[in-house]
Amino acid sequence: LLWVPSARRLVSGLVGLNVMLFGAALVAGEAFNPWGFRHQEPQVFLLVLMSLSLLWMLWYLLWARRQPGLSPHTDHHAGGITVTVVLMVFAGFSLLLHVFRMGYFVMMVECNSFAKVISPFIEAPFLGLQTYFLWAHSKDCIHKHKIITRSGLMLTLSADLLLWLNAVTEETLHLQIEMERENKESENRTSCSDLDNTTVCHCRAETLCLVFRKGYEILYPFNIEYCLMAGSMLYVMWKNVGRRVKPGAHSHEAQKITFRIVHSGGILLGPACGILVLLVGVAIFILYQVWVSQKTHRLTAFLLFYGYHLGVMPVMSLCSLAGMVVHKLEKHVSEDGHNPTRSLDVILLVGAALGQLSLSYFSLVAALSEGLGRTLGDLDLCYSVLTLLELILQNIFIIEGLHRHPSLHKARSKKMEPNFILKEVESKVEADGAGALGLLETGQVSPVPPSDQKENNTRWSKRAIQEICSFLILTNIMLWIIPAFGAHPQFENGLGKQFYGFTTWFVLVNLGQPLAVFYRMHSVGALMELLVTA
Amino acid sequence: LLWVPSARRLVSGLVGLNVMLFGAALVAGEAFNPWGFRHQEPQVFLLVLMSLSLLWMLWYLLWARRQPGLSPHTDHHAGGITVTVVLMVFAGFSLLLHVFRMGYFVMMVECNSFAKVISPFIEAPFLGLQTYFLWAHSKDCIHKHKIITRSGLMLTLSADLLLWLNAVTEETLHLQIEMERENKESENRTSCSDLDNTTVCHCRAETLCLVFRKGYEILYPFNIEYCLMAGSMLYVMWKNVGRRVKPGAHSHEAQKITFRIVHSGGILLGPACGILVLLVGVAIFILYQVWVSQKTHRLTAFLLFYGYHLGVMPVMSLCSLAGMVVHKLEKHVSEDGHNPTRSLDVILLVGAALGQLSLSYFSLVAALSEGLGRTLGDLDLCYSVLTLLELILQNIFIIEGLHRHPSLHKARSKKMEPNFILKEVESKVEADGAGALGLLETGQVSPVPPSDQKENNTRWSKRAIQEICSFLILTNIMLWIIPAFGAHPQFENGLGKQFYGFTTWFVLVNLGQPLAVFYRMHSVGALMELLVTA
Repeated sequence: LLWVPSARRLVSGLVGLNVMLFGAALVAGEAFNPWGFRHQEPQVFLLVLMSLSLLWMLWYLLWARRQPGLSPHTDHHAGGITVTVVLMVFAGFSLLLHVFRMGYFVMMVECNSFAKVISPFIEAPFLGLQTYFLWAHSKDCIHKHKIITRSGLMLTLSADLLLWLNAVTEETLHLQIEMERENKESENRTSCSDLDNTTVCHCRAETLCLVFRKGYEILYPFNIEYCLMAGSMLYVMWKNVGRRVKPGAHSHEAQKITFRIVHSGGILLGPACGILVLLVGVAIFILYQVWVSQKTHRLTAFLLFYGYHLGVMPVMSLCSLAGMVVHKLEKHVSEDGHNPTRSLDVILLVGAALGQLSLSYFSLVAALSEGLGRTLGDLDLCYSVLTLLELILQNIFIIEGLHRHPSLHKARSKKMEPNFILKEVESKVEADGAGALGLLETGQVSPVPPSDQKENNTRWSKRAIQEICSFLILTNIMLWIIPAFGAHPQFENGLGKQFYGFTTWFVLVNLGQPLAVFYRMHSVGALMELLVTA
Repeated sequence: LLWVPSARRLVSGLVGLNVMLFGAALVAGEAFNPWGFRHQEPQVFLLVLMSLSLLWMLWYLLWARRQPGLSPHTDHHAGGITVTVVLMVFAGFSLLLHVFRMGYFVMMVECNSFAKVISPFIEAPFLGLQTYFLWAHSKDCIHKHKIITRSGLMLTLSADLLLWLNAVTEETLHLQIEMERENKESENRTSCSDLDNTTVCHCRAETLCLVFRKGYEILYPFNIEYCLMAGSMLYVMWKNVGRRVKPGAHSHEAQKITFRIVHSGGILLGPACGILVLLVGVAIFILYQVWVSQKTHRLTAFLLFYGYHLGVMPVMSLCSLAGMVVHKLEKHVSEDGHNPTRSLDVILLVGAALGQLSLSYFSLVAALSEGLGRTLGDLDLCYSVLTLLELILQNIFIIEGLHRHPSLHKARSKKMEPNFILKEVESKVEADGAGALGLLETGQVSPVPPSDQKENNTRWSKRAIQEICSFLILTNIMLWIIPAFGAHPQFENGLGKQFYGFTTWFVLVNLGQPLAVFYRMHSVGALMELLVTA
């Protein structure tokens, strides 16, 4: 599907594929054999790639966008307000991270290679310009200079993905984190200073240097998530090059309408419960972050964290299940036609869920064979099983909801005559091309009875779906904040680390966790659409 | 895309996804922590999965296929004759492998767990029944019991993929192979007997046991390739459940027509050169296999292998390039409409090429940083670069060729009036739905001049494409035979092993090599279509 529509996408796709594979080989080579490269080839390759992307973005922003007719259409579905705001937040933290990295590398200049020292000085402008580019142009469907645009987008996308891979496998960082954790656990301040004396390349009691290193260690997950998000936005832009969007096909004002629905009354229980869960969640999150690094309160922190999730997950699963039942009762007509935006939504949802799913299965296996009988092991096992259940049910609920045909519902609630519905549908068929024919037929077979009972039924089911969606939106926001701001119990409880080994588990968590954050974000967006179209 | 058409595919897809992720976690757990499992959970899980698949296949073969109206359509594109024959060959070798495994495990019964000893006794019937099932039913588009059928197919697919993953990561096998290689290299028969005495679990000079082990070690790549092929065929079957194929939409008799074209004369140079390359290739392959295990001829074997490939690859690249130029000169109208069979073809082609591409890039990086200046390193570097070039050019040639509209060509060669072409096109538009409208327009703008010169031109370009395709088919067959029957110079030359470490490189080669074999096979099929439609 990637290659089909035109030969031009083939060329840029092949360029991107080859750059990514070569970069992945270099980064993997460095991870498996850190002393194998004599000239820091992986760093140099990344720097060259970032410089090329910078040049392309400058070309686009300074010259190409002034050309008339460059982007006649905009894809309203791409680059929604939620995604853009979150990207800004991550970009801010990542910029701060690069400032810390600059300071740390400059202070440690004698221990690091030249390529490594200058890397934050290239990465920071790359990050800044890319964020501006995505903020201003992520909705564009570009129609000129297609080959250069596609190749430029692919280069930038490759740079983001390789930066992500590089961050995940950066061995020195792992070792530093592990050393610090061990130091903290043994709580020997003397052994720490011993360690510092053995090597030249440690901060020797200089406060500034220690601050830089600490900031660097705390902030690196934001950069990983930023790269992943920017990459997915660039991918959507790449797919949109040369695309023609029909005017008015999809006015994506979900957020505004959401607030209007909630504000204008009607639904109450869902938002109320959701806000309660959110408030409790924030309290638990703060307590967890404070207590998990203190040895005396460590177990309490875990108990709080798992207790909260073991309480919330079953409620969310039940809500999703109830939503599925309501969908079944409604006997809605599902969209049969091929809708590319819908399929991209579903693919992104399932693809992002893969991260949390595999993380849960890996935790499950580790807990099954290591921790049975121990409190933490049992808790982790329950947490993994409930997360799996919740993910699967929520995915089914969302995907089924996205495939319902929204227009039938509107027609019903307006109490139109069956004849009128048919007319509306026919005009819709003319506008959309194909795909609504199935709707037309069912419209003829079972015309909507205008009785009050049916009306009540529809209102009731609409209300139920809206309550469920609003509750799930708020809980998903909470489940998104917790890992995004650095609570990683899968890493901190030590089970997976013990079972799979430190490096493997670190790579697994850092591949899976950002995807899990991305999944929660994306599902909030999808649930908002369900709420609006219910 | 996977989930879109119906909610039923969602359920079976989720089942498959969850089974695969859980299995992958178990298998990965065993690879990273072989002593972590007390009850051989990964083996037991695989056995249960295979038994369930067996039950489903028995249900389908003994009961479901007798039902009327089960499979009203057949997809002629799926399960072509080449693929089926190759599957049979791999299945035969895999069955032989299981016989050896049975013998070896039974003789070593005291060293292996119960689950491991009985595994070949379940795997052999699973393999046999699955091969029969795929041979008889791979073209079916099943229309009854859809949920059970889809879930059954997904279970079998998961079993195949997990068997593949398990074979790739099976640690004991690696160690045995490595030990044997080291023994061979040191050529100390005494140390070998020393080694045998230290542990109970080695064949102690019993010829039968040694034969079993040797056969097991030689034949395991066939099983890996079998699992991958069966998996891709099952995936196509799963996609085909509930699909309606238009009668006569695609009569896939490519092989027959290929032979007719070659037989009826016309093209000569391509097949002649191809057969020459094939014969030389077989000779080189036999010499390589004989010499690579002898220390005195080892370097000669590598020189022969690399020399052959360094000769063939540039010729293939030039042929692909020439084909691309011919395509450009022809100014063929490309298909604009969405064709699902075509996109699946292209996705499979590019997906399978990923294996060879990543293997080449990883070799390239290893050769760049380890072997520069050494003969083997330089040869491996050249080989990797040329393979990459050939793969990229051949992919572009095939994909561009697959997207040309075949009907225009037929119309031209029949010397029809422009008016007549338009009529034919219009009737085609009615039959196909949409997508040929671009063709209509160009037909109007530039009607085909009935001069002899144009006619000659068309004949000339057709002839050139056919020569190129026939040559590329034969060379791709050769490049497919060499790795399929066990020549792995990437593994035997030791460069990657030295750079990435033994286990990593073993896993990489065993993930990439079967995909490379699959790519060559698939590209032979695609080239045959180009030859027929040229």
